[in-house]
Order: sequence, then C-alpha cells, then structure tokens
Amino acid sequence: MTRVTVWNEYRHEQTDAKVREVYPEGIHGQLASFLKEAGMDVKTATLDEPEHGLTEEVLNDTDVLIWWGHVAHQEVSNEIVERVHRHVLRGMGLVVLHSAHMSKIFIKLMGTSCDLKWREANERERLWVMDPSHPIAEGIGEYIELEQEEMYGTHFDVPAPDELIFVGWFEGGNVFPSGSTYRRGNGKIFYFQPGHETHPTYYHPDIQKVIINGVRWCEPVKRDYPVYGHSEALEQISKKN
Amino acid sequence: MTRVTVWNEYRHEQTDAKVREVYPEGIHGQLASFLKEAGMDVKTATLDEPEHGLTEEVLNDTDVLIWWGHVAHQEVSNEIVERVHRHVLRGMGLVVLHSAHMSKIFIKLMGTSCDLKWREANERERLWVMDPSHPIAEGIGEYIELEQEEMYGTHFDVPAPDELIFVGWFEGGNVFPSGSTYRRGNGKIFYFQPGHETHPTYYHPDIQKVIINGVRWCEPVKRDYPVYGHSEALEQISKKN
Amino acid sequence: MTRVTVWNEYRHEQTDAKVREVYPEGIHGQLASFLKEAGMDVKTATLDEPEHGLTEEVLNDTDVLIWWGHVAHQEVSNEIVERVHRHVLRGMGLVVLHSAHMSKIFIKLMGTSCDLKWREANERERLWVMDPSHPIAEGIGEYIELEQEEMYGTHFDVPAPDELIFVGWFEGGNVFPSGSTYRRGNGKIFYFQPGHETHPTYYHPDIQKVIINGVRWCEPVKRDYPVYGHSEALEQISKKN
Amino acid sequence: MTRVTVWNEYRHEQTDAKVREVYPEGIHGQLASFLKEAGMDVKTATLDEPEHGLTEEVLNDTDVLIWWGHVAHQEVSNEIVERVHRHVLRGMGLVVLHSAHMSKIFIKLMGTSCDLKWREANERERLWVMDPSHPIAEGIGEYIELEQEEMYGTHFDVPAPDELIFVGWFEGGNVFPSGSTYRRGNGKIFYFQPGHETHPTYYHPDIQKVIINGVRWCEPVKRDYPVYGHSEALEQISKKN
Repeated sequence: MTRVTVWNEYRHEQTDAKVREVYPEGIHGQLASFLKEAGMDVKTATLDEPEHGLTEEVLNDTDVLIWWGHVAHQEVSNEIVERVHRHVLRGMGLVVLHSAHMSKIFIKLMGTSCDLKWREANERERLWVMDPSHPIAEGIGEYIELEQEEMYGTHFDVPAPDELIFVGWFEGGNVFPSGSTYRRGNGKIFYFQPGHETHPTYYHPDIQKVIINGVRWCEPVKRDYPVYGHSEALEQISKKN
Repeated sequence: MTRVTVWNEYRHEQTDAKVREVYPEGIHGQLASFLKEAGMDVKTATLDEPEHGLTEEVLNDTDVLIWWGHVAHQEVSNEIVERVHRHVLRGMGLVVLHSAHMSKIFIKLMGTSCDLKWREANERERLWVMDPSHPIAEGIGEYIELEQEEMYGTHFDVPAPDELIFVGWFEGGNVFPSGSTYRRGNGKIFYFQPGHETHPTYYHPDIQKVIINGVRWCEPVKRDYPVYGHSEALEQISKKN
Repeated sequence: MTRVTVWNEYRHEQTDAKVREVYPEGIHGQLASFLKEAGMDVKTATLDEPEHGLTEEVLNDTDVLIWWGHVAHQEVSNEIVERVHRHVLRGMGLVVLHSAHMSKIFIKLMGTSCDLKWREANERERLWVMDPSHPIAEGIGEYIELEQEEMYGTHFDVPAPDELIFVGWFEGGNVFPSGSTYRRGNGKIFYFQPGHETHPTYYHPDIQKVIINGVRWCEPVKRDYPVYGHSEALEQISKKN
Repeated sequence: MTRVTVWNEYRHEQTDAKVREVYPEGIHGQLASFLKEAGMDVKTATLDEPEHGLTEEVLNDTDVLIWWGHVAHQEVSNEIVERVHRHVLRGMGLVVLHSAHMSKIFIKLMGTSCDLKWREANERERLWVMDPSHPIAEGIGEYIELEQEEMYGTHFDVPAPDELIFVGWFEGGNVFPSGSTYRRGNGKIFYFQPGHETHPTYYHPDIQKVIINGVRWCEPVKRDYPVYGHSEALEQISKKN
C-alpha cells in the first residue's frame, strides 16, 4: 500500500474566500481524498505545523511526497528542504504540482531558476499526451481539456526532462511542458502543471487519474542507496612504477 | 575568437612537489597553454585571487569557463558560486574537469550529491566513445587509453546526462560515465572525468582534443535570455463568466 | 497476470551438444521456467513452428514478447517481422536478449545497423547499475558479476537509449551499454545483453530478476492507439483570405 | 564550406499552379537560394532524375542532405533509400522537412510509423523555442509566428527525440514537436515541421535561419566509422576451465 504524504502550503484557503469555496478542505484535503479512494495510505502536512509537518519520522514513512505551494515558498525552512532533498536522493518519490515549480525543493533538485511565463485569464488549456507508452498517461485519451486554467508558458527554465509526457496548449497562444519526469539519485520526480487555486482542477477525473498514475510511477525502487567514497579494486591491477 | 577563463583551485601545486613536477605552471597553466595553441583567447583565475578571480567583469568577458578544484571546494564563496550560476543560466559555457564533480557550482547545477566511488591506484583507464556523431568526439579514435588515472566509479550521483559521450573502463573492475553534457538555461555544461593531479593527463593529445572540442561545444548561442513572469495573451481569449 | 510469449530461434540447442547440456529444455524453456515461477502466464514459440509460432492470435494474447535469436535471423519471415512491429507500436512490450540485437525486428525498430564488437573468450563481465531509481534495477546490488560471458563491446550502433540502466565491464578491456530502454509508439522495449548460449547465464538469480523486472516494465499501458490522419479543428480558426 | 544537397520530390510545382506561383524555381530552388547566400556549397536533386539524382558520387560529396517529399514517397526506390541510410550512418547529416516525415528514409531511420494528425486550414502557427541553449535556435526570438501553415498535430509516432527544440502551437487547438534532433550511427538528423507547399514558409527569414542552423548542426564529425565484428582482447584474460 503506497504511503503518500500530501504537503500543502495551505494559505490561500485561509485568506481567500474564493479558494476556500473551491477547496473547503484545503487543496491537500482534496488531493488526499481521491488518493485514498485509489487505495493509498494518505497523510497530509502543512506549512504551519511544527517542522512543516515533515519530521524525519514522517518522511521515513513516506513513499511519495506531493508538494503544493505558491505564496509562501520563502517560509519553508532550509533545514526541511535539505531533509526532503536527502530523502528524494534516497528513493522517496516527489510529485510537484503547479506553482510548486518555484518551491525551494524543486529549484534545488533542478539546479535552474525554474521560472516561466504566466497569466491568470481563465483560459482554456488542452493537455496533449506526448508519450502514449508511459504509465503516467494510462487511461487518458488523446488530451485532457480544462475549461479554465492559469496559463504557464514556455520558456520553462528547467533541465530537459527525462520524459516529456504532456504538452499544454493554451487559448492565449502559449505552450508548456506540462507533465515531465526527472530522476535524481534513487528518487523519481513528476512535475504536473495544472492546479490553479481558484479553479476546480483537482476535481477533474482525468487530472486525478494522472496524479494517481504519477504517484505510482514515483514509488521507490527497493534497493540500497549506492556506496560512495574510497573503493577497493575488484580486479588485480598490474604493477606500475 | 572564443574567450576562455580557466579557473584552478591551485593548491596541490603549491603544497605537493609531485604535482608541481607534473604541472610546474599549475594545472591552469597547462590547460591554458594548449587552448591558446588552439587559437582561443585564454585567461586564468585562481582561488586565492580577490573574488577568486571571477569578478562580474571577468565573467562578462567569458564565453566558456573551465573549472578544476579538489581539496578546497568549501573555500569557494557562495556569492561567487551564485554569480557563476547566473552566468551559466544566461549562456556562459562550463567545462567541469575531474574532481570538480564536487565543486559547489557543479552540485548546484546538478541538484544531486555528485558523489562517486574513487581509488588512487595508478591503474589503466580506457575511455570509450559512446556517441560517434558528437562534435566533442571529433578526431578521437574508438577509445583513449590512459596508462594511469585515478579511478572514478559508478554510481555517479548526477542526473542522467543529456548526452553520454564517453564511458571509462578501469583496470580494477569499474566503469564511469566519463564524458557527459547537460543543458541548463541558456548554458551548456560538459563534464569530463580524467585529470588527476599526479598524472600527466592534460599533456595527452587526445585529452587535449576532447577539452578543446568541449569548449567549442559549450560556446554560448547568440540569443536573448528568455523573458519570464506575467505575459499578455497573444491570441484573443473567449469571454468566460 | 502478465501474458508473456518467449520466442526462441531454438537452433543451437539442436545442433550443439554443449548448448543442449546448458539448456536441455531450450533457452526458451529456461526463460519460461523462471517467468512462470514469478507468477506470469507464459507461452513459448520457436522459429520452426508455422508462422514461427507468432500468429495474429498469439500476439493478440501477448502483453510482452521476449526474443532470443542468433544464427537464423535471416530465416525469420518479413511478414512476421511486420506483424510483430505493428503489435509493438500498438503497445505490446518487447524484451530483446543478447544476440537478438541483430534480429530483423530489433533492427527495424532501431533504424540503425545494431552492429557491435564481440569476442568469445569466456571472460568476466560485471554489469554496473547506472540508474538506481529504475524499476528494472530493483533488487539488484551495485553490480551483477558473471564469471563468463561473451564480450559485446562499444560501439553499439543503436540510437541513444531513452534510459541506460546497465553498463557492462569486460575483463578484456571493453565496455557495453548492456541494459537500455526504448519507447516506440505505444510499446516499450528493453534490450539486455547477457545470455550467450554456452554459458549458464539465464540460471543466474540476478539475471532472472532483471528479466522479470524488464517484462514488468514493458507491460502495455491501457489506452487506445492514437488516431492519425485528417483532424477537424478543436478551436475556431479566424477567417483568412 | 558545407556541401549541401537539397532533394525535392518536385511534383506539386509541376501540377499545381498555386504551388508554382509560390515556388517558381521549385521548393528545392528556394531552399538552395538562401543556403547559398549563407555561404554553403549547394546542389539540388529531384525524384525524376536518374537514381533520383542521388548517385553514390553525389552522396560522397554531400555533408548534409535536405529532404522534401509529399505525394510520391512510394516512388523513391528502395535501393536509393538503402544508399542514403548507409550514408547517414556513416556521418552524412540529414535535414527532414515538413511532409518528409512520411518519406521512406525517415521511417527507416525512426523505426516507427511516423504518422501524425494534419489539417489544411490556413491557420496560425507559433513555434516556441523549447531549448534556448541549442545552436539550432541561435538568432531566434522566443517564438516564430507563421500566419498560415498546415496543422501537424500530436501524436507524432516517432521515438522521443534526443533534443526537442521547438513545439508548435496551432490556432485550431493542437500542438506538435516541430523541431527535433536524432543521432543515428555517425549521422545527425534534424526534423523541422514547417513548409507546406502552398504557403510561402521558406521565404520567412526565421525559418531560413533555423534551416541554416540545422544544416550546420548536422555537419558530419570528422572521425572513422566504428569497427564492428570480432575483436581481440585489449587486456589479458585470466585462464578459466
């Protein structure tokens, strides 16, 4: 049973009535809800809990961590970022949603600015499947249509993804690499663009399917962390000088 | 004319007679020497200069920065690392040599630990060309043989490279992704493993050829840095609620 | 329950006593045996059966096809190759073992010569894990050691793999991209180098584990084949001339 | 001086007045014209010439071959396709334009169906740069806008490209991987989607820039073709049984 921790900044919901209306249980509540229904063992954690709810113990018991953040990236402590980073390199999966592209943990893992173009214009997005063989696209038709989503547009300053699974078409004339995977150490990362706080994106059945698929794809592989450092020869080395 | 800045920590040469014997002008001196012969405009910079020799002005005038460091990675100031990082994302090429895999700038750009296995056993390395179509492999035969090199062994904790150009075979039984490229922002990065300070690796004609090719491959593309942030629609968006 | 068809040329076993001794039930028999134990629904098919045992019906009931061939690649009919190719593009997984690198189906899917260097010298191979996050490497230590294997050496004339999971170190001084994945259409392909007919490679528990993992990784994603051809606009196009 | 051969099917121009009006010298004539101006040594060849103008001699003297075809893919002889294929694996660059996605040579090199969605609706296309560090994007702004182009839409049944340089946004709601690179053997391939025969696409300065950049990127690397086949050991192999 996959053990998922859904982390949410949980600020918009407390200050913005419109967001609260869309997500009365918080964005984390809605994410947790459909992941539980998919048979996963789900916990939630939020910014204002001690250690942001991400103690060493919580992370030890987490197979896949989901991250949603937006206005308070800078309030996440560097110590917790280092901790999450260490867990990812050791195998914990990480699903990075929407505006978490600017979270400290994603920037640290990518090594780039992670900046992009954006526009709040309630415009249509159509997420096209670019890799029909990928398990993250299982059960999805040729595209997912969202009547309203925030525009995120190229250029997205991240490394070329290991796998590009979705490209978003936006009504206003932009495109975006909307679903991408990255491997870092023993860990797997899935970035998925949809999920603006004022739109009911996480109620869309196809978006839910992709996130469920993404969590499964990110599950840790059972194997030891590699051994680094000084290493004895495995074969005899011929004598030289 | 490609403007290259060769950065060297320049410590081994001052404290270790054996290294000084191999590189009387410093590792940077030897690197600069064959790059100049190849027709490049080469400057050098070292750790103990003010701002490590990497002022904003120097970096503005640098197309490709070469980095060699080993024992003093921690002495490189975070401010200079941020500065170099910004220049790479804006297009400056970066050639990372040997033990610079643990430099702050490389770790920051990779997002991983950059750790590996190592062994100083004066063993034979054979660098096999994995991508015969790549300009970095131009002029190189099927492999480069080094009579003695420090062993660097898998697992190398870096992202999967964009392009894998060399794999090293080591006498003691290890392999290593010895030549790899990465794109970050507008900048291109080439990591090349050979170059232990007690071996005359940078006098080997094929190693020189690869570094020259690598510098050329890393040259910045002439184009503006992408515009990020809020962006007006390019097409009319249909009115919604 | 994954439905696997193990295809074997099945010629060496009938003409070479040494091979028969190693694989009394045929290479396909041994492959089928451990895949069944892993809980899979396994059938076998061989070159000399009608339609090489690969009727439309058999392929319709196959999730993943395993291919072992060597001396009789040219005897495989083009019609069957086209049929297998069509099934791969439509989602059937394909695990290509050892000398099947020169099979018609692999060459057709790769688009290159698929040639390589080889040597039968009973030498040691050490397969190093290059991607510790990959499910195909699950349960494997840092490397797999084979006391004797045929050498396959770089350059291997295939496209750069989507994922490079193993690199082989050979006692005689060569390296090889020994485990690689490719996506073609809706189908996934895993090439795995070990398995010379005179060595008991397919009895090695780690080799079995990798093949089992590989079959699981190659399982088809449940989704429709993309629709190609003429396509109506999904958005209104402004009138022009 | 890069030696380019521009190959054009050259049929539309002879049967369709509208195409002839746009390209009075043939599509090959227009391509050759701006490549010459860029300082290249350019020849042309067409389908109806003996051996389609692609003799062994012509290909020996070609650094980069450009391919435009549409209605007559099936008239290209298999023998010539094999010849071009051999030259690509040996290092000749190949630039594949627009409807040449269904040419025999491209299908053979890709190993997939190369099928896609299409629509002739004179709609707007905006080609977004996805990789700002790539030499093929040199001199190009954030995107190229084409007032009218044929829609080519995802899914495009090709392997995941080695590098994805452009993604096309289409007015009618589709996206497409419009500029991609592939390495096959010693050869480099660039596929570029724009260029419908009834639109003046190849007069657009940015499209010309991309094709010129693409030709330069595809130039062969000076090195021998790898040696395949039986290979003596480079290191002593310990005696076994």
